[in-house]
Amino acid sequence: MFFASDNSGPVHPRIMEALMEANQGHAMAYGADALMDEVRARIRDIFEAPEAAVYLVATGTAANALALATLAQPWQTVFCSPVAHIHEDECNAPEFYTGGAKLTLVGDTDRISAEALRAAIEAEETRGVHGPQRGPVSLTSVTERGTVYGLDELRAVTAVARDYGLPVHLDGARFANALAALDCSPAEMTWKAGIDAVSFGGTKNGCMGVEAVIFFDPAHAWEFELRRKRGAHLFSKHRYLSAQMAGYLRDGLWLDMARQANANCARLVAGLRAAGMEFLHDPQANMAFPILPLRTHRRLHEAGAAYHLWNGTLDGDDPDQPIAARLVCDWSISSDEIDCFLNLLRA
Amino acid sequence: MFFASDNSGPVHPRIMEALMEANQGHAMAYGADALMDEVRARIRDIFEAPEAAVYLVATGTAANALALATLAQPWQTVFCSPVAHIHEDECNAPEFYTGGAKLTLVGDTDRISAEALRAAIEAEETRGVHGPQRGPVSLTSVTERGTVYGLDELRAVTAVARDYGLPVHLDGARFANALAALDCSPAEMTWKAGIDAVSFGGTKNGCMGVEAVIFFDPAHAWEFELRRKRGAHLFSKHRYLSAQMAGYLRDGLWLDMARQANANCARLVAGLRAAGMEFLHDPQANMAFPILPLRTHRRLHEAGAAYHLWNGTLDGDDPDQPIAARLVCDWSISSDEIDCFLNLLRA
Amino acid sequence: MFFASDNSGPVHPRIMEALMEANQGHAMAYGADALMDEVRARIRDIFEAPEAAVYLVATGTAANALALATLAQPWQTVFCSPVAHIHEDECNAPEFYTGGAKLTLVGDTDRISAEALRAAIEAEETRGVHGPQRGPVSLTSVTERGTVYGLDELRAVTAVARDYGLPVHLDGARFANALAALDCSPAEMTWKAGIDAVSFGGTKNGCMGVEAVIFFDPAHAWEFELRRKRGAHLFSKHRYLSAQMAGYLRDGLWLDMARQANANCARLVAGLRAAGMEFLHDPQANMAFPILPLRTHRRLHEAGAAYHLWNGTLDGDDPDQPIAARLVCDWSISSDEIDCFLNLLRA
Amino acid sequence: MFFASDNSGPVHPRIMEALMEANQGHAMAYGADALMDEVRARIRDIFEAPEAAVYLVATGTAANALALATLAQPWQTVFCSPVAHIHEDECNAPEFYTGGAKLTLVGDTDRISAEALRAAIEAEETRGVHGPQRGPVSLTSVTERGTVYGLDELRAVTAVARDYGLPVHLDGARFANALAALDCSPAEMTWKAGIDAVSFGGTKNGCMGVEAVIFFDPAHAWEFELRRKRGAHLFSKHRYLSAQMAGYLRDGLWLDMARQANANCARLVAGLRAAGMEFLHDPQANMAFPILPLRTHRRLHEAGAAYHLWNGTLDGDDPDQPIAARLVCDWSISSDEIDCFLNLLRA
Repeated sequence: MFFASDNSGPVHPRIMEALMEANQGHAMAYGADALMDEVRARIRDIFEAPEAAVYLVATGTAANALALATLAQPWQTVFCSPVAHIHEDECNAPEFYTGGAKLTLVGDTDRISAEALRAAIEAEETRGVHGPQRGPVSLTSVTERGTVYGLDELRAVTAVARDYGLPVHLDGARFANALAALDCSPAEMTWKAGIDAVSFGGTKNGCMGVEAVIFFDPAHAWEFELRRKRGAHLFSKHRYLSAQMAGYLRDGLWLDMARQANANCARLVAGLRAAGMEFLHDPQANMAFPILPLRTHRRLHEAGAAYHLWNGTLDGDDPDQPIAARLVCDWSISSDEIDCFLNLLRA
Repeated sequence: MFFASDNSGPVHPRIMEALMEANQGHAMAYGADALMDEVRARIRDIFEAPEAAVYLVATGTAANALALATLAQPWQTVFCSPVAHIHEDECNAPEFYTGGAKLTLVGDTDRISAEALRAAIEAEETRGVHGPQRGPVSLTSVTERGTVYGLDELRAVTAVARDYGLPVHLDGARFANALAALDCSPAEMTWKAGIDAVSFGGTKNGCMGVEAVIFFDPAHAWEFELRRKRGAHLFSKHRYLSAQMAGYLRDGLWLDMARQANANCARLVAGLRAAGMEFLHDPQANMAFPILPLRTHRRLHEAGAAYHLWNGTLDGDDPDQPIAARLVCDWSISSDEIDCFLNLLRA
Repeated sequence: MFFASDNSGPVHPRIMEALMEANQGHAMAYGADALMDEVRARIRDIFEAPEAAVYLVATGTAANALALATLAQPWQTVFCSPVAHIHEDECNAPEFYTGGAKLTLVGDTDRISAEALRAAIEAEETRGVHGPQRGPVSLTSVTERGTVYGLDELRAVTAVARDYGLPVHLDGARFANALAALDCSPAEMTWKAGIDAVSFGGTKNGCMGVEAVIFFDPAHAWEFELRRKRGAHLFSKHRYLSAQMAGYLRDGLWLDMARQANANCARLVAGLRAAGMEFLHDPQANMAFPILPLRTHRRLHEAGAAYHLWNGTLDGDDPDQPIAARLVCDWSISSDEIDCFLNLLRA
Repeated sequence: MFFASDNSGPVHPRIMEALMEANQGHAMAYGADALMDEVRARIRDIFEAPEAAVYLVATGTAANALALATLAQPWQTVFCSPVAHIHEDECNAPEFYTGGAKLTLVGDTDRISAEALRAAIEAEETRGVHGPQRGPVSLTSVTERGTVYGLDELRAVTAVARDYGLPVHLDGARFANALAALDCSPAEMTWKAGIDAVSFGGTKNGCMGVEAVIFFDPAHAWEFELRRKRGAHLFSKHRYLSAQMAGYLRDGLWLDMARQANANCARLVAGLRAAGMEFLHDPQANMAFPILPLRTHRRLHEAGAAYHLWNGTLDGDDPDQPIAARLVCDWSISSDEIDCFLNLLRA
């Protein structure tokens, strides 16, 4: 009953197999391996983007920070949600990689609305050289609150960016879970909806440590390659990044895992709802933020359920005290574990 | 009737004289000039801080960015007001000089309250290495809205910083105007109130282009010197910075100019109030933000009064439409100009 | 017959097994995994350094750049060989991570002599704030020319650094090969010889992508952790870095692989010498730079031997024309391959 | 008899007058002053470059670092002389402003030859993304050794840069002295000779603290403006930079001062030669590096002559011991002082 994070789970056996298969003899280093050719072709195919520039790095923060640094100048500001991973969880990596760009927090929730973005861009009146200049917009889907941008929402917010000539980055650390939730094509969720660059996550969804960075405009390719190398994110034994991503993409494994995680989360949410629990945020993919009575939390905790509390520390002793929790389902959670959790809940 | 800014006015004649006097023969370069010895001694004396490290730079942004870079690590966040000059008007200079630190905006107004600071620091729960680490607090007085931290306010907010071990920087681009408003000693307004480093402005108050950076803990001295040089802010013909600051400090000229500017602003405010005008912010030093009817603004404007509108552009034609303006009095404004402006207002 | 690089070979089966074993259930993320405890304890034991700070990253450039950034200030210069990887092969990663420090090239060869270091440090007369300040010394062993610092050499060069209070970093991308060549203890080759920080390589010696950074003074620990996170080099599924390193260190696999690689290189060198070939540099570990006649090179090349030419491109057609080559033996080269290569050579 | 530096002398009275004249009433801030219009027009006229982008900063290091940052990417290397000011005397300001670019030292003397540049560029074989990428070439004239690039030399070296598509920057901290030595037009010494950007010095030649940065391709204008602001080098009371530069350029004062300094240096050199002294470098502008016997140095020193020794410290007591000195003539040295110095020399 491990719901603490989707970055703590195991690697899917088929991805381990891909690694084993790749482990034969010598291979060209630094991304010139044949598996990378497969990965590039497959991603271009999946995204219906035959010209896209495609690169692999090992961490989501590297994907985000390098993508943003390629899109932003140091004197610009990046528009993002106040709960964005790039703002809250990357220890200033975007500021470091961009050479000192700023992050402007848009609105007060996880999904940026078109209105809030327009207001933020307008408020960032540049006053000539004095203020930070307007830079890229960075969206996240699935968000850190477990919700997913609808296609209409995406199109509306990217339309505002386009009005000001600003490029749009999508932090897709949980891209597959968002796609499974929307049930649309990757192209529809990205370039057809106005996205210019994607951090396409693998790590949280069954890989060992690999993310793709995709630019639909290949003009960014060479600069990205230099930034990746200078950031120390170019792997010499690159084939092992390629192999993970190849295994992830073969036969739709990536989407199968995300669908399963989302389905298990839905089962969990249904059980929680049936038990009368409310939620901090609408659970739309593989994360739920239920509010539990302290007594229930204690029972679950003692039975071995692992998850993060969401409102800081526990203090007070009232057994009815409401406790917010974050429950994340990764690909490896089984429906048995869900049921076991729900049984405990109802006990 | 020039109220547009205190960075557009002339240099005081006594400061020009100090420059002329300094212009004799050769002098040691790079801050080893005898005038700098005078400046250092005088500032230490004025601040009752015999050990303080004192340096000169030519712009307020340099003073702020170099002071903050000396106090902050690149992985930290600087706590400041959302209307702070370092956030809104320095084109990411603090981010550049700190090597990519973040700015956390505290509260929603110009003066940071102790409560808002505590909340912001707490919200910046550092989560180990994941979030930005807590860094220095930067206050501004006179603020960009023309108000001044009271000594109690200063002490309360620095006490919070001290609770978390965070150093406090004061952006004193209008230090003299704030001091004149408080009518206390420089020591009381700074280190006795918990301030660790000061940008002590000269440029806006009658100098040509000089600001002092003061660290009450001289342990910062050598690092600051290296940062200043590396930032290209160390003047070879440094005596001309020293001469400005020496002339500024001699015989209390700096405070006399600030008192005169504040007094003229008070005269202006009294006239505006008498004419029934209201203000966006409480005018406490040398800046006022009155709300004028469009017809009044037009009359003043046509008569040659120069000032900035504060709510963006004029649109609409209703002569009663309220227009917010920013009026700044520098040392060179005369009471005749004030009276002339007020006569136009009442016309 | 793949001698092109030790970063193109396969992962040792026992390291793949360690990865498979680690792939069970959930584990704490971000370095809090139990395998990291094993790795830390083992490295402290191997280095006889019970207090050492030990961290894992995935690339050698990350290890070097993060270690140097922790030791150097942005206004300093790092002393290194003109052929150092940090200078020639990291696309300015050290400059990026240090925030703009300089690299001063010492001497004209791969191993820095005490005399050359002293001369370079003295030449970097700091002239107060004007010149770059003296910063850390970075040594490499095995060097990019295949030679190894003797213990006396190491002690002599670190003694010079100590005279000036400068810390010493060792780029040990091929640490195990150097250690095997010296046949001493890791402590003797490092802290007992005056080394303060080590990039302890795994990738080139049979791992998939893992390097340890070791600081013998644990005071650097927290800053390094922040720099690693901000550099996007902290892995969420960290156990897979730990597992590689654990497998590498268990039962002396790391040294066994290095010894085998060195032995095969010695066999290769002996054969080349017997065939009358000369060498650009003295082959002391697992790399050799023989000078081959063009005709020999062509024969080897056509038979499938893979290696890099070392003097740029081939032009000219004289079959006796001397061609410098770089031959690298990794752990996976067999003595049969060596013999096959030598037979071709003698044909 | 002050020959220590041309950055320690006084400001020319006509420049002080220009400052006094500018000190009337209010003026537009941040470079929008009318005097800047005059300066821009005059520099475009002097350089026969009607489209050139022209900006003012207060220090030579700011001019160089900002110009180079505009021309270079962080992953590139700047080609310069090993004695260039940007390498030896700016405490890593170019590395800071470029975001971590490298400096490649070309040849072993003050003027870069076409051959040495070609060799350095070729040696910086970029090896794909691994090595630093080739970036701008930075030349200095008058060099730090007092010599001047001939027009043929300039054209030859910029032709090499052009072969590789690299832009060329000229550090003209002593531009006027170099121009006076060459007796050609500013256009001939710059864009007609292949120079793309110039740091056009005023400070060392009679100004208080002002340098122009000139880009012959105005496409760099906006980026430079943002970099200047973000570097804290945009003056609010900009008219006082403009006034200095305007006074400097009016009626050819800038060239008159440089010609006088050069003529006095020539008089000094002739006297030194007549007294049998030799020189470390050929004195071509306003600096000379004579080798004096210790006894002569002592006599001059005791009589009050001020200059820097060039070979480090004095040790030893042999009165015939040769001592290298650097003598700099600025505009304010009189021929009487020269004669007085020469009389002492001959005594």
